[in-house]
Amino acid sequence: MTTVSPARPTIPGERYMTRIRRFQELVDGGELTAALIGVGPDLEYLTGYRAMPLERLTMLAVVAGRSPLLVVPRLEEPAARAGVRTPIDVATWMETESPHGLVADAVRLARPGGGGATMQVAVSDRLWAFHLRRLQAALPDAAWTSATDALRELRMIKDPDEIELLRQAGGAADRVVAQIAAGRLVGRTEADVADEVRERLRAEGHEIAQFAIVASGPNSASPHHEASDRVIRAGEPIVLDIGGTFGGYNSDTTRTLWVTGGDEANGPTEEFRHLFGVLLAAQGAASRAVRPGVPAEAIDRTARDIIDGEGYGENFFHRTGHGIGLEGHEEPYLVAGNDEALSEGTAFSIEPGIYLPGRYGARIEDIVVCGPDGPIVLNNEPRELRVVTG
Amino acid sequence: MTTVSPARPTIPGERYMTRIRRFQELVDGGELTAALIGVGPDLEYLTGYRAMPLERLTMLAVVAGRSPLLVVPRLEEPAARAGVRTPIDVATWMETESPHGLVADAVRLARPGGGGATMQVAVSDRLWAFHLRRLQAALPDAAWTSATDALRELRMIKDPDEIELLRQAGGAADRVVAQIAAGRLVGRTEADVADEVRERLRAEGHEIAQFAIVASGPNSASPHHEASDRVIRAGEPIVLDIGGTFGGYNSDTTRTLWVTGGDEANGPTEEFRHLFGVLLAAQGAASRAVRPGVPAEAIDRTARDIIDGEGYGENFFHRTGHGIGLEGHEEPYLVAGNDEALSEGTAFSIEPGIYLPGRYGARIEDIVVCGPDGPIVLNNEPRELRVVTG
Repeated sequence: MTTVSPARPTIPGERYMTRIRRFQELVDGGELTAALIGVGPDLEYLTGYRAMPLERLTMLAVVAGRSPLLVVPRLEEPAARAGVRTPIDVATWMETESPHGLVADAVRLARPGGGGATMQVAVSDRLWAFHLRRLQAALPDAAWTSATDALRELRMIKDPDEIELLRQAGGAADRVVAQIAAGRLVGRTEADVADEVRERLRAEGHEIAQFAIVASGPNSASPHHEASDRVIRAGEPIVLDIGGTFGGYNSDTTRTLWVTGGDEANGPTEEFRHLFGVLLAAQGAASRAVRPGVPAEAIDRTARDIIDGEGYGENFFHRTGHGIGLEGHEEPYLVAGNDEALSEGTAFSIEPGIYLPGRYGARIEDIVVCGPDGPIVLNNEPRELRVVTG
Repeated sequence: MTTVSPARPTIPGERYMTRIRRFQELVDGGELTAALIGVGPDLEYLTGYRAMPLERLTMLAVVAGRSPLLVVPRLEEPAARAGVRTPIDVATWMETESPHGLVADAVRLARPGGGGATMQVAVSDRLWAFHLRRLQAALPDAAWTSATDALRELRMIKDPDEIELLRQAGGAADRVVAQIAAGRLVGRTEADVADEVRERLRAEGHEIAQFAIVASGPNSASPHHEASDRVIRAGEPIVLDIGGTFGGYNSDTTRTLWVTGGDEANGPTEEFRHLFGVLLAAQGAASRAVRPGVPAEAIDRTARDIIDGEGYGENFFHRTGHGIGLEGHEEPYLVAGNDEALSEGTAFSIEPGIYLPGRYGARIEDIVVCGPDGPIVLNNEPRELRVVTG
């Protein structure tokens, strides 16, 4: 279960230096007093340091007019120094000290006038409430905003190394879909197939097999179905929606199969073929609509108009897609109301679905990068309804 | 790599009904207007529903004087209904609606007088700042506290099923330690051994192999070392600190090996043997000190006094332990300043370490339950320095 793969790119250390310098300039030149980045994708983006989120605070403080400071528990200092990919000042705290007070002290050293009369402090979106409440208590007069929003312009536009990582992540997930589609399915539980998906994702180079939706028969009408003990039968669809992280970047691929058990009489119903044809048209049209300057919601509208037009509007009750990168879901979101124009280098899923509750459903998902003249589709497994023996 | 294991207990559905009823009574009878529980261990404890934390809000609202309400995205409704282990009202929101507003509306329906003049709203500790900031904007006059604290009395005292799950999780991790200690180590990278640890944890029944610290030679002086490309050599120690979730409950075991490569001349130094002997004495004394009524900090003090007394005080720079259950780290914390008395049924790690920076270090960790008359130790692999060929 191993495959020879192209060399996986490594983000060079200077890239992190550039990112953190640009972010410091953003803070220095803007309204924020400070941006406080907890463990998670924002921290990884800026420093390369990938740590576990814990009750012990690890936090990058980017304070207006100061140098970036990484606050870490004393016992994680060696791990942090080994984990950061760019030189950065480190301050440690001992188990009986208050790290939130330490961070608050750093924020109070912001250059005078930063943020006007009220301190404007931004925190990363994934910071735990445990930490945010303590920071709010330590800085009671501050107004609180999102550091992830402040970083969004930087993180949303992927550089060529990031796009290559997303491409390889997608290719690995594609191969797993093909392997699963070629194997035995009928008579196995969804959970058993999901375990196989996870093993294969890891064998294909994923560090983490984050999710493995295996939704068979009526379960395929549940978009975020948790693989269950249901036994897969001949004559029904399976939605496979799988992904995880590969070199830190996320894969996320959905394909719909129909398993016959080898008996052609168990092929797709006419209704399902029709539904799937509508979905395929919608997904393709939405992908082709991608280019710089197009509003995110227009991609959603393109898919939705086709599905609405065939009378399935009520059966497509989620957005068309989400950005992807260091997070499985990030900006930009392809959803009604998001009129922001797509930029070259943004990366996102395009994944309409049609669900008939209690009966069955289907979804097709690709990761697409907005190229200079149109879409660059990173998933290349056939999107058509794949009728297999199973 | 599979082992015949005792039957894994399942928490029965009525248990969740009891938990959520008791928590509702706590809210009804106390100062809180509402407790808002996001995706994570608190939600799993109360409902059995294990979901991925996402930017789409899933939240259990336990509002004074009302019935518990689970707010979920429309597309996750079937998964949520299948995931909860006790009957509960569900409210769904569509992609273009504000779920935070929906939750705020539910909070405003609290029985009059709840929390006095100011609304007291508690949120679970692991809720993302992304969600807490939006809830704070929707309820600008509320005071914010911790729902995890409100739940701590319930979650901290493990029932027999939970203790059995912790015991089985620990036994699985113990077997992995024994398997690794018996295998080849010299000449392999730490990262390669960590991959083997993860595979073996899964083979032994863990759903998630959360961490695999393999810290060799000088890296053993870094308590939270990330397994690296360093090649393990004969004549050095390896700290193995491994764990993950098993039936939702966490394992967390640390043992220290010394690899000789088969040559007795590469055995442990006198200094390391001495250091390890001190550590072993400290860990054992701390375990034996466990009984109901003893303050948590006294267990820390017991270990620290022995280590201090041998002149290694500066080299033991983290707390002695942390509670464990649905979270890898939870209440109670065994740390100076925590004078709360241990109760029967609390479960925690006891894991002193001694680290000589740049040279080497050691740690021993067991999970211990506070029994009616003393400690119940859940890890039974030998704690002594294990000198192996590797």
